[in-house]
Amino acid sequence: MRFTFTLMAIGLEVVMIVLFALFVQYDTGLNNSDANSTESPAIDVETSMDFYPHFRDVHVMVFAGFGFLMTFLRKYGFSGVGFNLLIAALGLQWGTFIQGIFYSHGQKFQIEIKSMINADFSAVAVLISFGAVLGKTSPIQMLIMTILEITIFAANKYLVFEVFLASDIGESMTIHAFGAYFGLAVAGILYRSKLEEGHPNEESVYHSDLFAMIGFLFLWIFWPSFNSAIADNEKKQYRAIVNTYFSLAASVVTAYACSSLLEIRGKLNMVHIRNASLAGGVAVGTCADMEISPYYSMIIGSVAGVVSVLGFKFLTPLFATKLRIHDTRGVHNLHGLPGVIGGLASIIILALEKSDSNNLIYSGGAEGANLGRSIHMCAILKIPIWAQPSDEDCYDDSVYWEVPRRTEYDNRFHDLLDFTPLEHEA
Amino acid sequence: MRFTFTLMAIGLEVVMIVLFALFVQYDTGLNNSDANSTESPAIDVETSMDFYPHFRDVHVMVFAGFGFLMTFLRKYGFSGVGFNLLIAALGLQWGTFIQGIFYSHGQKFQIEIKSMINADFSAVAVLISFGAVLGKTSPIQMLIMTILEITIFAANKYLVFEVFLASDIGESMTIHAFGAYFGLAVAGILYRSKLEEGHPNEESVYHSDLFAMIGFLFLWIFWPSFNSAIADNEKKQYRAIVNTYFSLAASVVTAYACSSLLEIRGKLNMVHIRNASLAGGVAVGTCADMEISPYYSMIIGSVAGVVSVLGFKFLTPLFATKLRIHDTRGVHNLHGLPGVIGGLASIIILALEKSDSNNLIYSGGAEGANLGRSIHMCAILKIPIWAQPSDEDCYDDSVYWEVPRRTEYDNRFHDLLDFTPLEHEA
Amino acid sequence: MRFTFTLMAIGLEVVMIVLFALFVQYDTGLNNSDANSTESPAIDVETSMDFYPHFRDVHVMVFAGFGFLMTFLRKYGFSGVGFNLLIAALGLQWGTFIQGIFYSHGQKFQIEIKSMINADFSAVAVLISFGAVLGKTSPIQMLIMTILEITIFAANKYLVFEVFLASDIGESMTIHAFGAYFGLAVAGILYRSKLEEGHPNEESVYHSDLFAMIGFLFLWIFWPSFNSAIADNEKKQYRAIVNTYFSLAASVVTAYACSSLLEIRGKLNMVHIRNASLAGGVAVGTCADMEISPYYSMIIGSVAGVVSVLGFKFLTPLFATKLRIHDTRGVHNLHGLPGVIGGLASIIILALEKSDSNNLIYSGGAEGANLGRSIHMCAILKIPIWAQPSDEDCYDDSVYWEVPRRTEYDNRFHDLLDFTPLEHEA
Repeated sequence: MRFTFTLMAIGLEVVMIVLFALFVQYDTGLNNSDANSTESPAIDVETSMDFYPHFRDVHVMVFAGFGFLMTFLRKYGFSGVGFNLLIAALGLQWGTFIQGIFYSHGQKFQIEIKSMINADFSAVAVLISFGAVLGKTSPIQMLIMTILEITIFAANKYLVFEVFLASDIGESMTIHAFGAYFGLAVAGILYRSKLEEGHPNEESVYHSDLFAMIGFLFLWIFWPSFNSAIADNEKKQYRAIVNTYFSLAASVVTAYACSSLLEIRGKLNMVHIRNASLAGGVAVGTCADMEISPYYSMIIGSVAGVVSVLGFKFLTPLFATKLRIHDTRGVHNLHGLPGVIGGLASIIILALEKSDSNNLIYSGGAEGANLGRSIHMCAILKIPIWAQPSDEDCYDDSVYWEVPRRTEYDNRFHDLLDFTPLEHEA
Repeated sequence: MRFTFTLMAIGLEVVMIVLFALFVQYDTGLNNSDANSTESPAIDVETSMDFYPHFRDVHVMVFAGFGFLMTFLRKYGFSGVGFNLLIAALGLQWGTFIQGIFYSHGQKFQIEIKSMINADFSAVAVLISFGAVLGKTSPIQMLIMTILEITIFAANKYLVFEVFLASDIGESMTIHAFGAYFGLAVAGILYRSKLEEGHPNEESVYHSDLFAMIGFLFLWIFWPSFNSAIADNEKKQYRAIVNTYFSLAASVVTAYACSSLLEIRGKLNMVHIRNASLAGGVAVGTCADMEISPYYSMIIGSVAGVVSVLGFKFLTPLFATKLRIHDTRGVHNLHGLPGVIGGLASIIILALEKSDSNNLIYSGGAEGANLGRSIHMCAILKIPIWAQPSDEDCYDDSVYWEVPRRTEYDNRFHDLLDFTPLEHEA
Repeated sequence: MRFTFTLMAIGLEVVMIVLFALFVQYDTGLNNSDANSTESPAIDVETSMDFYPHFRDVHVMVFAGFGFLMTFLRKYGFSGVGFNLLIAALGLQWGTFIQGIFYSHGQKFQIEIKSMINADFSAVAVLISFGAVLGKTSPIQMLIMTILEITIFAANKYLVFEVFLASDIGESMTIHAFGAYFGLAVAGILYRSKLEEGHPNEESVYHSDLFAMIGFLFLWIFWPSFNSAIADNEKKQYRAIVNTYFSLAASVVTAYACSSLLEIRGKLNMVHIRNASLAGGVAVGTCADMEISPYYSMIIGSVAGVVSVLGFKFLTPLFATKLRIHDTRGVHNLHGLPGVIGGLASIIILALEKSDSNNLIYSGGAEGANLGRSIHMCAILKIPIWAQPSDEDCYDDSVYWEVPRRTEYDNRFHDLLDFTPLEHEA
């Protein structure tokens, strides 16, 4: 993959730089008086910078959260966290440009901190899709998918928010459901029947599961910030935080309950816990800023926790065998199903309030149509020049990375024979 | 444990939802004008949302900090981080309700961001106690302990702050000392003499110690936020941050000095470092917001670092043999002793300032009495239907979790024999 | 090392306490009215506390970021993260004092949150140097180096900012280039030819590389906060954030491209990725707050990513063989070269704007002279009483730490023979 990858990466970066030079400007609405000065009351008006704390939390989720969530496979940790970084770094540049240009209608536009949140959000959609094809694609395919998916993502988001005027504060539909179903479609396109027989590397080891828990926890902890990051007043932001906080807590409890019920001898399954405990955050996303009452968000979270575990147990195997879609990280159960639950929950709330829930229904329908129309573009990923790994090489870092050969076992063996005598440690 | 656990978890979640529906409301004091509007000067008054940055830091400590701090045992990492999540997720819901209802005297009450900080705080008390019984209890026992302990915690806190009007900004006494002595009492109730002979799984491996360092570091880094989270003016918040910052730094230096002095051949002990370096944060907690001067907080931190290491070296073995209390994570040395030091330091300061230090003394006494009176409730944990692990199964994830069987050794073995040839990595 | 280390650490902590008692005071400019009160409009003026969110991010970088970045060696993880903690904890105390006393000209001075940022910054310089000598020095040598380096650091910084009035918002020159070249000088002084033949412990294992990625990611994520932490108005802060965000993203893409190009069969090298992806943050540091346009910061980041990978491939081996400087973590490629690039980039910008770029040139020259003059002080580190590890003991935790003897292999072996039967996990 040596030259193709290098040329493509360098080429894309050059394109980004040229596009930024032509279209991207600083925010000009900021105050430049000294922070320590006491004269200027103008400092106190809300500005772009007020979004920075939320940006940081989202940034942690994108790079550390999703990054380590991808490290659960025993031999695919370098690729999991490493390709996550590459996708997100390219994606945030392209996401900044493409979303900016959509809203400016082709004119020069300014970057605010909020644009950086939206850029990170666009990367999240790709990272969700990445989970579905984890271990089965090359870095070159990742680069192509990043550009394609974010383009469709931006068009879809423009349609949902600007044309249908739908409400989706945590972007459960436009990011999570979109990313999941896009990823499943790609996984379907790249389906390889031989991998279904079970691959020895498509497993975790004890410590790789613990690494994945790092990613999980930073996602879980900062999810209230994710769902409230683009709220445009304090009341909505507050409600998005509180509802997400309790929805997540509820989904943890029901995820544990349900995982224990479904597994042999009542044991807990780390895959269920790691995903279903987050489902509450996705599911409450669409209506998190509404006045739904905390107990209602706990109901949403509880249901999402249960449905997500059921999805892992029953739907994922079915998808692989019947639909020929192999979903490595089970993104359908964390992002797809809970995203749909979130849409339904919002429709119910709006219907009860006699608000216009049709916007949500229309935008959900439009999103499906957008996905359907655009997904054939991804067939480009099947072209055999993108250095896709062979069936045997799937889920294995050593195809794309220099991997240390020395293992724990060697360490100990070496200790016994070599010049670091064990009595040192007596 | 299959059905008992599932029924209990689902049942508790249903109870939470019903209680929230009856008693919990949104904060109504927030501004809902657009954040980008420049008209409204009312935006600038301090509101509930100003506590959100501190809440996030506390939230990181509770879930990532304590979570990974519990992963030090070689075969109990899933349970350490996983049960930490379960306890905290249930605990924050119950803690929100029980603390709210105490202060509202049985009326409906509003949730502010500060309530979420206090909810997380109540979970911390249980997580400290969890450390004392780590590896020796079942998830069902955890659920029961969470509900019991937070109830007593809330009652004790109400007494200390509302009746005795004591000052304890970082809640060293009401969270740390309380959680530690509660945990030791439970450990005493659940004492099993056979475990004292030494259990092969009650050990760390190299990488489990490194995982625990992740938890340690996030606790250490955000402790200034913990101690200043509920400060009610900027000056107190500032002092709590500065004092905690320097107290922690000092306790690191003395912890290293003392650990090296006490170990064979002057080697450092990771258990000492990981705990005693945090002792400064606990010990300075009670007086962190007072005008004690930075150098005084460094003295408190230095003493706490030394005492904590001494506790590990001399007290923990003594507790196990003489008092029949086995403290897995050594919570007495990190939370118990330093919490008491914090109380004493505050009494000295208040006495020197001729302020009324009696409140602190009374409240300390009352806390002891509360603990003594209520701890027999925990005898309920001994009932043999809670699926407590047998002596052999202690400190072992595989009793409650599906655990991957493949280890590092297998990885390498597999590489040698199988279709991923080593020359790939040459 | 038992008594020397203990005495030195305790002695240093006592000195710190005495110095703080004599010179360090609280900030008196803060508001102490109740945070929930709505009366006081004075709350809204910018105060020391406004720097707290940035302080937290820097604090995460110093302790978790640099800490885990040092854990990449297979047997030096305890020392990597542990000595990082010790150096930083001592360094921030000494850095607070020495920088305060320089600016107060020997008078008592007040601590603001900004002083804590600067204290953490001074620790960063030492942590960078620590990377160059990682595995080859004793904790006693670390303590001495911390005190020496921060003293020179403070003097140099005073000269650069107060005498030459240079602009260096992210302190690429005063922290990164300074720390790197100081570290290289110490590595040169402590050079041992036998280590050049290759040491079996100077290698990573799979999981140690993943631990290092935790550190990398938290550095990467919070770098925009690092470069904007001491900006004195909102506009500069905003620009520093935006420029760093895009510079880092660009350096990730070019680092991947360049690493793949230079390695055998186009594989990626984790060492390149982990370091060169951060180079963009260092390189853009000097000019991050200037109005350089986002695309220009992407150019700086792209160049830094390429140069950093080239440095690892060609310069590091050359340094070791020709200059007799062995740089364990390759700090020259992450902090040295990109720091110089940052200085050059700023000179170009200022020259184009016809501003006075001479300040930067003078201060760069002065920094070099300062380093040259002061570095012979470090010869003190060569005195043989500081318990420096023997050649064989380098890169090995067990010289200074109690290390668990049980390894992954033992775990499995134990499982097969012992009372935790494998069918539990079937």
